[in-house]
Amino acid sequence: MAGSTFGEILRMTTFGESHGEAVGVILDGVTPGVDIEEKDIQVQMDRRKPGQSSVTSPRKEYDIVRILSGVFEGKTTGTPMCVILYNKDMRPEAYDDIKRSFRPGHADFTYLKKYGIRDYRGSGRASGRETAGRVAAGAIARKLLERRGVQVVGYTTEIGGIRCGRFVETEIERNEVRACDPEAAVAMIEKIKQLASVGDSCGGIVECTIRGAIPGLGEPVFDKLDAELAKAMLSIGAVKGIEFGAGFSASAMRGSEHNDPMSASGFASNHSGGIVGGISTGQDIVFRVAVKPTSSISVPQNTIGIDGEERVIVTQGRHDPCICPRIVPVVEAMACLVLEDHYKRHAALHG
Amino acid sequence: MAGSTFGEILRMTTFGESHGEAVGVILDGVTPGVDIEEKDIQVQMDRRKPGQSSVTSPRKEYDIVRILSGVFEGKTTGTPMCVILYNKDMRPEAYDDIKRSFRPGHADFTYLKKYGIRDYRGSGRASGRETAGRVAAGAIARKLLERRGVQVVGYTTEIGGIRCGRFVETEIERNEVRACDPEAAVAMIEKIKQLASVGDSCGGIVECTIRGAIPGLGEPVFDKLDAELAKAMLSIGAVKGIEFGAGFSASAMRGSEHNDPMSASGFASNHSGGIVGGISTGQDIVFRVAVKPTSSISVPQNTIGIDGEERVIVTQGRHDPCICPRIVPVVEAMACLVLEDHYKRHAALHG
Amino acid sequence: MAGSTFGEILRMTTFGESHGEAVGVILDGVTPGVDIEEKDIQVQMDRRKPGQSSVTSPRKEYDIVRILSGVFEGKTTGTPMCVILYNKDMRPEAYDDIKRSFRPGHADFTYLKKYGIRDYRGSGRASGRETAGRVAAGAIARKLLERRGVQVVGYTTEIGGIRCGRFVETEIERNEVRACDPEAAVAMIEKIKQLASVGDSCGGIVECTIRGAIPGLGEPVFDKLDAELAKAMLSIGAVKGIEFGAGFSASAMRGSEHNDPMSASGFASNHSGGIVGGISTGQDIVFRVAVKPTSSISVPQNTIGIDGEERVIVTQGRHDPCICPRIVPVVEAMACLVLEDHYKRHAALHG
Amino acid sequence: MAGSTFGEILRMTTFGESHGEAVGVILDGVTPGVDIEEKDIQVQMDRRKPGQSSVTSPRKEYDIVRILSGVFEGKTTGTPMCVILYNKDMRPEAYDDIKRSFRPGHADFTYLKKYGIRDYRGSGRASGRETAGRVAAGAIARKLLERRGVQVVGYTTEIGGIRCGRFVETEIERNEVRACDPEAAVAMIEKIKQLASVGDSCGGIVECTIRGAIPGLGEPVFDKLDAELAKAMLSIGAVKGIEFGAGFSASAMRGSEHNDPMSASGFASNHSGGIVGGISTGQDIVFRVAVKPTSSISVPQNTIGIDGEERVIVTQGRHDPCICPRIVPVVEAMACLVLEDHYKRHAALHG
Repeated sequence: MAGSTFGEILRMTTFGESHGEAVGVILDGVTPGVDIEEKDIQVQMDRRKPGQSSVTSPRKEYDIVRILSGVFEGKTTGTPMCVILYNKDMRPEAYDDIKRSFRPGHADFTYLKKYGIRDYRGSGRASGRETAGRVAAGAIARKLLERRGVQVVGYTTEIGGIRCGRFVETEIERNEVRACDPEAAVAMIEKIKQLASVGDSCGGIVECTIRGAIPGLGEPVFDKLDAELAKAMLSIGAVKGIEFGAGFSASAMRGSEHNDPMSASGFASNHSGGIVGGISTGQDIVFRVAVKPTSSISVPQNTIGIDGEERVIVTQGRHDPCICPRIVPVVEAMACLVLEDHYKRHAALHG
Repeated sequence: MAGSTFGEILRMTTFGESHGEAVGVILDGVTPGVDIEEKDIQVQMDRRKPGQSSVTSPRKEYDIVRILSGVFEGKTTGTPMCVILYNKDMRPEAYDDIKRSFRPGHADFTYLKKYGIRDYRGSGRASGRETAGRVAAGAIARKLLERRGVQVVGYTTEIGGIRCGRFVETEIERNEVRACDPEAAVAMIEKIKQLASVGDSCGGIVECTIRGAIPGLGEPVFDKLDAELAKAMLSIGAVKGIEFGAGFSASAMRGSEHNDPMSASGFASNHSGGIVGGISTGQDIVFRVAVKPTSSISVPQNTIGIDGEERVIVTQGRHDPCICPRIVPVVEAMACLVLEDHYKRHAALHG
Repeated sequence: MAGSTFGEILRMTTFGESHGEAVGVILDGVTPGVDIEEKDIQVQMDRRKPGQSSVTSPRKEYDIVRILSGVFEGKTTGTPMCVILYNKDMRPEAYDDIKRSFRPGHADFTYLKKYGIRDYRGSGRASGRETAGRVAAGAIARKLLERRGVQVVGYTTEIGGIRCGRFVETEIERNEVRACDPEAAVAMIEKIKQLASVGDSCGGIVECTIRGAIPGLGEPVFDKLDAELAKAMLSIGAVKGIEFGAGFSASAMRGSEHNDPMSASGFASNHSGGIVGGISTGQDIVFRVAVKPTSSISVPQNTIGIDGEERVIVTQGRHDPCICPRIVPVVEAMACLVLEDHYKRHAALHG
Repeated sequence: MAGSTFGEILRMTTFGESHGEAVGVILDGVTPGVDIEEKDIQVQMDRRKPGQSSVTSPRKEYDIVRILSGVFEGKTTGTPMCVILYNKDMRPEAYDDIKRSFRPGHADFTYLKKYGIRDYRGSGRASGRETAGRVAAGAIARKLLERRGVQVVGYTTEIGGIRCGRFVETEIERNEVRACDPEAAVAMIEKIKQLASVGDSCGGIVECTIRGAIPGLGEPVFDKLDAELAKAMLSIGAVKGIEFGAGFSASAMRGSEHNDPMSASGFASNHSGGIVGGISTGQDIVFRVAVKPTSSISVPQNTIGIDGEERVIVTQGRHDPCICPRIVPVVEAMACLVLEDHYKRHAALHG
């Protein structure tokens, strides 16, 4: 099947290109009778939108969401919700220089190879702008999860080699990089600005914690909860890896260290990241994603043109020197969609 | 939908429990007219089967595959192939002690929470034995990929903290841990045996390289090639993480370092792991998976019974002290299935 | 999964309610590089829109289509196409009378039972207006089929008991009921007007012929070409039955009559309707759908209110006294989508 | 996707050819904790098996079912159930004559065109024998539906032009054609025997009534309950049409006749067949399928060989002169699977 649909029961289909007329999403399978307003979605869009801080792209998209269907008198009807965002600040002319060259690290080359045609304006469909639809759908899923007492919190734990040393949840939304450690955040912002000043970019790590999920979520053997979360996260453009709980460090652990002992009061540790055998344990679900440095940089790079000729490219445009702060709400959105979908799949199994 | 099916066009459905009558798989969507014999599948089963070496479980399963359908006069017919393996060496009595307790690190607790019932014999469906069906299906996918000139090679790069220092492809199948470095292999085997002697286990890292894939594979925005590979790998019980190319180390890189420059002779580096924007670049596709230490250990562990009462458990049974050697063919099988499926999806897009 | 998506590879998802802000569709999996313009879609919309003749609903929807994504410089890009139609002539106040009662033959009762909430304005999602999105998607599929030499032609063969006696393809679009027999068309129109004058409605039969399809389309054993067409057609609100080739009359035939003999010049008859064993034979594919009389009538009817109390209802509003003329393009659209999807599935099998 | 899978949440995948080693099914998504025994399935297999009466094929298949997985200590575990039937009475030599010719009305031609290869032994995958797996899965679905108070009853209403004049449910399983009218049954049996004596066959109509289903089942707009039932029924080889409630006769009705009035005591009629807007009303769900005359006849027929040369063929083998009696349990099985799947989808929507 075509690849723009995600989820089994709660099912999202996104559309739109960076510099087309609009981007948006259809979310089908929404529980009927739930209160929802555009502002419930808007608040998440505002966390994702460009131009929100000194370390994000200065592109000016107000990202005003409009619900076109599926809601009646303030409540979901169970029919598909279409949420749309019209593009405003399009400057296709700014992309004329990349029309004929492949930017290193970008999907210019692979899209042309795959489709034989490419909308080069602002990366077209490969742009991070596509995630606006995901965040809109995720905001709806979040509303559904709230009724279940489930919370999804994402935050930056590392940027450009600088790691968070502590976790202060209340600080996350108070700093421009959404780091869980306010001191580290200061150093991260400085690092980003320094790299931005020389036209370069940096990567990082974003962690996500899901609280309040019941044990029993996940559909072995292929649609395990961690397998679905992994797919969801790797479907985000800049993400290059994921690990759950102890993750890659488990490779150097012994079984007697890694196994989480149980007692009458619950699990004594959470090396599993809250998922065992592909099914939630009832503990916090914890995973981390590796975020690559933004591909768009204005440092001169060697590349080739669509004609195969070698050249040096300097990417102009309005880009994020580090995508971590804006990827946090996208990670959360995808996690919300996976969780709510699996609650519904679990209901179906026993229903 | 229920979770025992994987793939869109080339579609695998597995069945069977560790100590039931049989395990197996239906693979639907196989290209018709392709030569296939049971021995094409058997050779891969033999790489996965228990008892193959001094560092694997001594359970004696000959794992003789039988093709029940979909092949006529030595050729695939395009109808579903059912491949079955009857279980032989079942000793359910050996599992009587775990009938009433949850083994730490095992899916005992989560399966009971999810289904309200659990087949405790040898972990039932949660057993690694389920992967026998995957390896059978993967062997068929591998045959299809061979016609395209695609090779999939998996190997261990780290076990119990010991890392491979070099890559010698011809050595992989010559050592019992399937490591790509023969000297490291010796140390790894020693480490495993030492841990096994005290009833403990260890984890590791398995890498997989896919050669010869055309550029253009992968279906943005959700069914990206890396997203699908991530789901495939995380659906393997012991896998806790995945990273592509530079992976987690990309978090500390600058864009000017991470971007792979292009020249007339191709890409100058492969930090992307052969996938950009979710689409193959035509380079080698390279990813690594984190393998947790085997949960089944005979070291005494604190746990609770199904009645909630605290107790100490010592897991008996015939287990692998490190699952890396036997997970290699499973990783390869899943990679083969993803690749062949995406070749077919690509054909459908343009077809 | 939620039910607003149709197709496996060429995949349509519709959204929108009759009196909401817009109706529309996302079509994903479109072959890239194909010329497409809004007017290619508009021409089909115009065949479906209300107010087009003396025997259709006088609701004034200009149904101007707008392509929001998936097209670049006049060509498809292979990314999802969103096509939208903003609703104009909404008169929700006209539906105040049905807010509290269930109209016989309508989905008022079943939607409320299913969802626990209902958008009563013009039947909401259950309105025939939803099919606008289908016709838009079908117009795109038709463009893809044209390149394959496939033609899809629908026409009315019976209305209110009046049957077509002959088949003159050039006459179909020349009469207001899209009948294949111009004389029968005159009688049909008269019949409709007579029933409309007393506030009643009538049903009919629509036939569809698909020409030029290759043999080999259809995916046994469940996704047979006739099975998929049957689902597609029964998903249209007013359709209550479907038959292929000889159809129900086959029940009274002998095998020696029904079997289509073959000779060097092809099949000698087409009782199969061009599909055998669920796979196209290369002959014309022929099926007929039973269309029920429009439920919305102004004849007084016994019903109950949402409070369960009995009452008499007289449905006001602007309705079609016979839906056949406007269902023809919907039947064609769904047939186009099924055919193109199966071409792509066939390409995937061998690809 | 490949076509051997049916259902969204309760998901069946069949495999096997008529003269291969076995036929069978995997049913995934079964509610855990439900009592099931092989005999629950066997009783339905016995209604489908050949050789059960004087008017069915004399092929001797005992059709002994074996559950290979998904059941533990007499209860379903929620993991995939594989049910297998080993083929016994295979006489491939009887099919040597059809190896080189296309039998009229059979899928010989279309399978070869589609796959480029065909298992000609007893029609291979296109054989009615494939439905054994469906009946096994349907028997499990029936067990699940019984817990909901849903009953599914199929019966013959017409054979070879002879129609049932009355409905006596208790008589259905007492006559060899499963007709609902014992007098008509006598005439039908005589008709079949007369045609069989001259090597010919006949068609018929099978009706199915589903009782006790709640209102609210069905997933608009594409996965309507009638749309899914239509697909399910048309996926049965010999079925050429379906109609719900008044069906094709609705085409000659007025709206004021066809609409089912409601009163405080329920609906006054059931022209809708228990489904409105694609959603169950809570009334009996009633549909009829057109069954074509068996294609396998020993009357000489004109056809061509695989070399394209014209010839006369006389099909030998052991065939049913009328498939209605044996198609009844297949119709019921598919209806059970659709209904149970939709109960689970409904649970997911609200879950």
